[in-house]
Amino acid sequence: MERDDYLAIVKTRMPEKRYIHTIGVMETAISLAKQYGEDEKKAETAAILHDIAKYADEDWMREIVQTNGLDSRLLEWGSEILHGPVGAWIAQHEFNITNEDILNAIRFHTTGRAGMSKLEKIIYIADMIEPNRKFPGVENLRQIAKDNLDLALEACVSHSLTFLVQTKQPIFPVSVECFNDIIS
Amino acid sequence: MERDDYLAIVKTRMPEKRYIHTIGVMETAISLAKQYGEDEKKAETAAILHDIAKYADEDWMREIVQTNGLDSRLLEWGSEILHGPVGAWIAQHEFNITNEDILNAIRFHTTGRAGMSKLEKIIYIADMIEPNRKFPGVENLRQIAKDNLDLALEACVSHSLTFLVQTKQPIFPVSVECFNDIIS
Repeated sequence: MERDDYLAIVKTRMPEKRYIHTIGVMETAISLAKQYGEDEKKAETAAILHDIAKYADEDWMREIVQTNGLDSRLLEWGSEILHGPVGAWIAQHEFNITNEDILNAIRFHTTGRAGMSKLEKIIYIADMIEPNRKFPGVENLRQIAKDNLDLALEACVSHSLTFLVQTKQPIFPVSVECFNDIIS
Repeated sequence: MERDDYLAIVKTRMPEKRYIHTIGVMETAISLAKQYGEDEKKAETAAILHDIAKYADEDWMREIVQTNGLDSRLLEWGSEILHGPVGAWIAQHEFNITNEDILNAIRFHTTGRAGMSKLEKIIYIADMIEPNRKFPGVENLRQIAKDNLDLALEACVSHSLTFLVQTKQPIFPVSVECFNDIIS
């Protein structure tokens, strides 16, 4: 399937604002892939599909987790954490994506994980710094991403954890494993 | 054993600065116990012994963890995380403390945990706000502790997690379980 075919399907699954975000992630991911020597087509596909499950029904997502033996810790979490792993499941079973690196980039784009691949880092970072993101500090993250992919990942993960603490949102344990791995 | 007997032994196990900190934690913990209706003697004992393992040999602490079946995740961590659980072990086996609430207050005084008792909260908070602590933001934590024990715990745990992220120090998973429990 080509870019426009993917985009046409993705567009029907999310509000316009999220679709515009998806385009931003795609363009940023392709640019980072070019800069840091990753396969641009893989970055494009992972970026287009990264939020495919964002608006899926939570109960249905939990059913997918249960019936497909995904990480059982997910069952206690909401859409914010579920949509990555379930998005990877949709990418595999509906879009026939078989490349495990693309699937992992979708799977861990919100939480990160210990031992991320280059493609996973690119999608995680692109999701946070794409041009439509407006939060305080995003410009600093964009600057770091211009120079060093690993430092950008560290800054993005640190920003995410600090944001969760300050806004009193629960932290998925895999995000802490990701942070501990990055700083070790 | 009375307060002075405990203090005399504790004093031989740590540098003067840490002993002065211990006295500060003891006084703060007794004051919080009085204010929030906890047993002052239990608060005193837990506070005096909370850092008893702070300067113990790390290899010896790991041996204690292994031979006594403590949480095996501790084996990958240094003194900063080990000294709470090993301190509880010392309190039990050397000082013959049998009260599980006192032991837990020592055990979890650095990391916190999900479902802390009132005594555990008091020791965790006292350790952070005792008068010798000087870090930016400590005065705010002291003010909150004057009004509400649970809000003080939330503020202390949030401060601790933010500090670890900002200073690039690893986060023990139990601290995240503690945070997620507090905000839920």
